[in-house]
Amino acid sequence: MSRREIPEDDIESLAVGAWILGTGGGGNPYLSLLNMRVLYREGRRVQLMPASDLGDDDWVGVIANMGAPLVGIERLTDHETIARAARLMERHTNRRFDAVMGMEIGGGNGVRPLMVAAHLGVPVVDSDTMGRAYPEAQMTSVAVGGLRPCPLTVVDVRGLESIVDTVPSWKWAERIARKICVEYGSTAPTCQPPRTGAEVKRWGIHGTTTKAIAIGRAVREAQRTHDDPVAAILSVEPGRLLYKGKVVDVERRATEGFLRGTVRFEGMDDWRGSGLRINFQNEWIVAHRDSEPLAMTPDLICVLDTVSGEAVGTETIRYGQRVTVIALPGPDIFLTPEGLAHVGPRAFGYDLDFRSVFAS
Amino acid sequence: MSRREIPEDDIESLAVGAWILGTGGGGNPYLSLLNMRVLYREGRRVQLMPASDLGDDDWVGVIANMGAPLVGIERLTDHETIARAARLMERHTNRRFDAVMGMEIGGGNGVRPLMVAAHLGVPVVDSDTMGRAYPEAQMTSVAVGGLRPCPLTVVDVRGLESIVDTVPSWKWAERIARKICVEYGSTAPTCQPPRTGAEVKRWGIHGTTTKAIAIGRAVREAQRTHDDPVAAILSVEPGRLLYKGKVVDVERRATEGFLRGTVRFEGMDDWRGSGLRINFQNEWIVAHRDSEPLAMTPDLICVLDTVSGEAVGTETIRYGQRVTVIALPGPDIFLTPEGLAHVGPRAFGYDLDFRSVFAS
Repeated sequence: MSRREIPEDDIESLAVGAWILGTGGGGNPYLSLLNMRVLYREGRRVQLMPASDLGDDDWVGVIANMGAPLVGIERLTDHETIARAARLMERHTNRRFDAVMGMEIGGGNGVRPLMVAAHLGVPVVDSDTMGRAYPEAQMTSVAVGGLRPCPLTVVDVRGLESIVDTVPSWKWAERIARKICVEYGSTAPTCQPPRTGAEVKRWGIHGTTTKAIAIGRAVREAQRTHDDPVAAILSVEPGRLLYKGKVVDVERRATEGFLRGTVRFEGMDDWRGSGLRINFQNEWIVAHRDSEPLAMTPDLICVLDTVSGEAVGTETIRYGQRVTVIALPGPDIFLTPEGLAHVGPRAFGYDLDFRSVFAS
Repeated sequence: MSRREIPEDDIESLAVGAWILGTGGGGNPYLSLLNMRVLYREGRRVQLMPASDLGDDDWVGVIANMGAPLVGIERLTDHETIARAARLMERHTNRRFDAVMGMEIGGGNGVRPLMVAAHLGVPVVDSDTMGRAYPEAQMTSVAVGGLRPCPLTVVDVRGLESIVDTVPSWKWAERIARKICVEYGSTAPTCQPPRTGAEVKRWGIHGTTTKAIAIGRAVREAQRTHDDPVAAILSVEPGRLLYKGKVVDVERRATEGFLRGTVRFEGMDDWRGSGLRINFQNEWIVAHRDSEPLAMTPDLICVLDTVSGEAVGTETIRYGQRVTVIALPGPDIFLTPEGLAHVGPRAFGYDLDFRSVFAS
């Protein structure tokens, strides 16, 4: 595979697929999709390239919005603002980007690199550093790889621009950037530490934009043909059906730059009489069925609208929704002891040893 | 007057005088003094120059430590770390400094520009932007003058380095830098927005290092000759004796990157039977005698050890101390409506119209 223009219809599928891979987080991609529709209507086009085509010395911008997804519903960011985060990084490092990629393929952050690519006139790499969405800066493949955790730029729509120039660790990058983000109002476009082409090839999680497009396309096709969209996802991805039910309680609070809380479900169909509880920090982290752990990070817990097959986010989930919960396998790099130290249940404060849905 | 080397003995006087002009804040200068003794012992020397000798296009670094003074007692900063804040600014603006100056003449921050000057090999300008100490970034003559509020660098001893690159106002510079500072641990060396020579000449508060040295010299001379050191201060500065008493209660908390609280005093000598209460935010802000406002910012409220004449800081004041409280006049620029909007009692949340001790 080599560089190709992303057709507008694929961006529609990308938005649907990235929202599913977001496991509740990364922000609802709808606003990012609207931004891309505008850019394409203006005649801009974005190229997708495989990481393998990068030169070792290429300079790659890593794009993400950070913050509490709920805030992103009210404080909208646009394609120009997130491009500003990348341009600030270019000025700061005194080097133009040869390509951009997403920090995470999940949610709106799966689409945002396309906005920046359209502005900078560079391709998007078909890789990310999470293979899903995660809430914190140290929860990436490049952090597991011990790559340099800085510099990092943080901007906002009012023109605020800050640079986390030097930090001793990824956790410090997260700590400082998060405090800046909270002061901005708990949502902020960022340019994460830039990577060389060699680093992306070695540490990126590859093919994830293509994967998200394929998932989204399957869902949209099933919607069109009135087939079961959840079954369509499971036909293109090696996932597991975990639960069907309806939302009976949502506890949610935007705090410390995150959206945290718990959602409770009551079983339907085969799961009648069985309760489910999912805890979240931006993303769905740990699911308990009748008090027994059912699924947990780094497995992807995906809460889907039972009828449409589209994802339900931690900021959009509400009482009464009918949902189907599936699991998708997490990237291999997070299944190692070092990976689990970064993104396993204990990294989120749960006193649980990771046990994969796919181990049984 | 033109450029001259600052003799080591003048630095001893500067530490005493700056602590008095700090009105309780700016941090105890003792650690800064120790740093300067070391630098002078190593053979380094610092030049003092009047602002009038600056070229209009000269590039001037503005030096300050920010944070809660109490924390500065335990987390020590050194001359190399604060020089790093200035060097980061030089790199970021791609321009070497021709001189440095203090953001505030008060406390340790009256001495810290000398540390940076020794490292950078440039002179210290005999001017600052407060004529005293104040807790927040927008409480300066350059903020009253509407000069550009960025960029600003924030570093710490562990190697953390951040840049507040663009902000729409001085209050935003304060907000973002303060959150970074709190995350560092509530103390951080900074390089404030650089100024041109023309800006320093127009908006600086001039002669303040010389003034601090003169005050300190008067106190030290009185100590040597067993004269009244408070009277010695009032012989070189147009101040007013406000109160004598002893400390009977100290409420103090380090919060949001500041040291806040209230100190209560019981009168002695002519003030027997009369109570005094001073509220502080790093600096002494408002003094009430028997519930009536006695003195308030921007007048300088200086709490002095009655015997030694040396300043007592908001982080060092303690039960039982015998103190004499004097007022010194604030810089003219803060007495205008615009100045009072930045540093008057309402800027600190007190529902009081400014009334100067020196108006009566």
